[in-house]
Amino acid sequence: MAKGIAIIGAGPSGMAQLRAFQSAQQKGADIPEIVCFEKQNDWGGLWNYTWRTGLDANGEPVHGSMYRYLWSNGPKEGLEFADYTFEAHFGHPIASYPPRAVLWDYIKGRVETADVRKWIRFNTAARRITFDDATETFSVTVEDYNKHEEYTEEFDYVVVASGHFSIPSVPYFSGFETFNGRVLHAHDFRDALEFKDRDLLLIGTSYSAEDIGSQCWKYGAKSLTVSHRTAPMGFDWPDNWQEVPLLTKVENNTCTFADGTTKKVDAIILCTGYQHHFPFMEEKLKLRTNNRLYPVDLYNGVVWVENTKCLYLGMQDQWYTFNMFDAQAWYARDVILGKQDLPSKNEMYADIETWRAEEDAAPDDYASIEFQGKYIQHLIDKTDYPSFDIPSSNEAFFQWKKHKKKGIMTFRDNGYKSVMTGTMAPNHHTPWTDALDDSLESYLKKK
Amino acid sequence: MAKGIAIIGAGPSGMAQLRAFQSAQQKGADIPEIVCFEKQNDWGGLWNYTWRTGLDANGEPVHGSMYRYLWSNGPKEGLEFADYTFEAHFGHPIASYPPRAVLWDYIKGRVETADVRKWIRFNTAARRITFDDATETFSVTVEDYNKHEEYTEEFDYVVVASGHFSIPSVPYFSGFETFNGRVLHAHDFRDALEFKDRDLLLIGTSYSAEDIGSQCWKYGAKSLTVSHRTAPMGFDWPDNWQEVPLLTKVENNTCTFADGTTKKVDAIILCTGYQHHFPFMEEKLKLRTNNRLYPVDLYNGVVWVENTKCLYLGMQDQWYTFNMFDAQAWYARDVILGKQDLPSKNEMYADIETWRAEEDAAPDDYASIEFQGKYIQHLIDKTDYPSFDIPSSNEAFFQWKKHKKKGIMTFRDNGYKSVMTGTMAPNHHTPWTDALDDSLESYLKKK
Repeated sequence: MAKGIAIIGAGPSGMAQLRAFQSAQQKGADIPEIVCFEKQNDWGGLWNYTWRTGLDANGEPVHGSMYRYLWSNGPKEGLEFADYTFEAHFGHPIASYPPRAVLWDYIKGRVETADVRKWIRFNTAARRITFDDATETFSVTVEDYNKHEEYTEEFDYVVVASGHFSIPSVPYFSGFETFNGRVLHAHDFRDALEFKDRDLLLIGTSYSAEDIGSQCWKYGAKSLTVSHRTAPMGFDWPDNWQEVPLLTKVENNTCTFADGTTKKVDAIILCTGYQHHFPFMEEKLKLRTNNRLYPVDLYNGVVWVENTKCLYLGMQDQWYTFNMFDAQAWYARDVILGKQDLPSKNEMYADIETWRAEEDAAPDDYASIEFQGKYIQHLIDKTDYPSFDIPSSNEAFFQWKKHKKKGIMTFRDNGYKSVMTGTMAPNHHTPWTDALDDSLESYLKKK
Repeated sequence: MAKGIAIIGAGPSGMAQLRAFQSAQQKGADIPEIVCFEKQNDWGGLWNYTWRTGLDANGEPVHGSMYRYLWSNGPKEGLEFADYTFEAHFGHPIASYPPRAVLWDYIKGRVETADVRKWIRFNTAARRITFDDATETFSVTVEDYNKHEEYTEEFDYVVVASGHFSIPSVPYFSGFETFNGRVLHAHDFRDALEFKDRDLLLIGTSYSAEDIGSQCWKYGAKSLTVSHRTAPMGFDWPDNWQEVPLLTKVENNTCTFADGTTKKVDAIILCTGYQHHFPFMEEKLKLRTNNRLYPVDLYNGVVWVENTKCLYLGMQDQWYTFNMFDAQAWYARDVILGKQDLPSKNEMYADIETWRAEEDAAPDDYASIEFQGKYIQHLIDKTDYPSFDIPSSNEAFFQWKKHKKKGIMTFRDNGYKSVMTGTMAPNHHTPWTDALDDSLESYLKKK
């Protein structure tokens, strides 16, 4: 007796899963009942911006780490859906680094067209998911904040699509408790204008540090000091931006670094990454991984080996995003529909290890991009998701990296060719450093 | 077969419960096995200050709403333990409004003496608590962050002592998403110096607004604007402090109020209260109440009527604190030890309604204080908790209210007589407005 599929989360991965099933249905397939539980009151996951930090209106941890004025930090040509292009959505070609509102509009457009919103229960937080070996069903307990009521339903499959950029990793540094200003994690960063005319310390060297630092610089921070554990980012930063070794201690507003230098700052932003955290999953279903291109315990990066009725989407470290989630969602769908053969547990674990060894052997970012491209191709080959030119997509990422190296504040002024439509992206009407209005209307208007 | 007692939380209420059982044991009683689960890495609940906001190192919601430089906002004579006085702990009388570190030291002192820390499992978050009607036991599932492992144990009783000043109530006001600064709830307020020389808007009129506003004023905020929904607090505020009607909208940094006036501010602090939130309790055990002196569904304010093996401590709105938790913990202990007769469900519900009607009939704060004093006396009369002079305690609160009315920035310079020892508190060596050092050492040193 099919009791259906529970999808946890209606962000990019959950939306991809909904579209994958709707696509099969559209082609005449019978699909099971689908219930998607979303704790926010709208879809889009982290693309659904909120001004809230910490805990949301329902007392749940705020999902989003999105901040105002965010523009894509990678070219849209690397994340375009193969079944729904930017050009189709907007009616004309657009530039390559859209701000948040534009990307949110795009990913919503596809699922609005697919009419799958009816499958989502909003304001409903996953509380507890367990699997009963005897009945081979999942008990999914959720709290419905519309009714202020908890309830439990049974499902045959669970797809976890709750993301892994929600729960911050927040290290302690000596003296934080004496700092006379705000210490925040990137997760809680919202509006760069809070830090106008201020001296800022950022800790970390990945996308959060690079992009939040750039935002704050663009919106008038007085100085940026970025502290690294291993190596500086090494871009050609503006004059009021310095890279320093690791913070060793804080005394009131004075920060001391491993080389003995000091800097007085007004705020400290911890750009120290995120944890994979699934408090609602019982132990035997709980993915525990660091952030990497091929996590443990997921066959084809998706299927929970110990219980193949449990699947995880989007848990990889990411060069590719939306179209990788699609490749995964189409594959997950076909696993659930019984169209994919799964080997024995041992074979699945061995396969995972082969991929992980290849990931570990990748000598540089370029090889890592190709590795993830290969993984996506591997999934696409198994389903009816429209194939696309992955080597050319990889190439867009290579160009992007070169453009960043050339000018960290100007790379977004470049355009790339869509591998889906073959169209070259137009240049945006305003250089990124001058584009203070990040609205959809401003972005789409002609010069 | 006794499987023991699970206590959720090692804050003031949980510590009181531990001490209550140890006190019985000390007097020769047999007590069941006790396991206290505490998600923080130390005891003291919100008195265990953390610089963290939002989510903690383990990805759990930060428990504490404590901020730096907090001094008790009520006289210590209203919260003193009857079995462990301030004078006994510190070796001499101390002034009436101690800062946080002093109060933390005091509440730790009693349980250190009682040697009950061994009953606590730190870094362990309650994940799921259910009750099996057939076996009459609770399944308590927790996540141990030391081992990164979830496990489940069975208990006969559960005492929920997880507090209700942890999960903020965060209202939305029109335009918050356009505000060019920090919008935070009082829960996330940490260091007033972040707001030095800044124009601040606070929303709310209860303790958070009053005290956080006063802190920010003391530490150099440029101006304080406090917006009320119903009525202003009406204290005699400093010149750079104004009370205004409810915020109606925000546009960038400009706030508009219900009377049409506007104010440009740099930050908005929502002093809008807290939610009772027990995501780890299954629906049939979950207390759902607003913040009031006599919540629903708890007989004698403690016993969950629908399942009297489940007890809640400290869920009341509070004039009294530590000694009320004591009265509750001693009573809860005796319920668990079978020394208290519980009437029928209907009688319990009727009794609760009688109390609630009396609470509702209280005409003013003075009557509310007396109501809570009466409730505490009612509990104390049922156990061996040392009785104390509650009318005199009420009187300390009455004096406190008059002192606040007389001078909201000077009321902490007053002293009161301990109802436990009869000793008059000495005046503090420095007026509160000048006392910038809130350390224990500074507080205890002689003038």
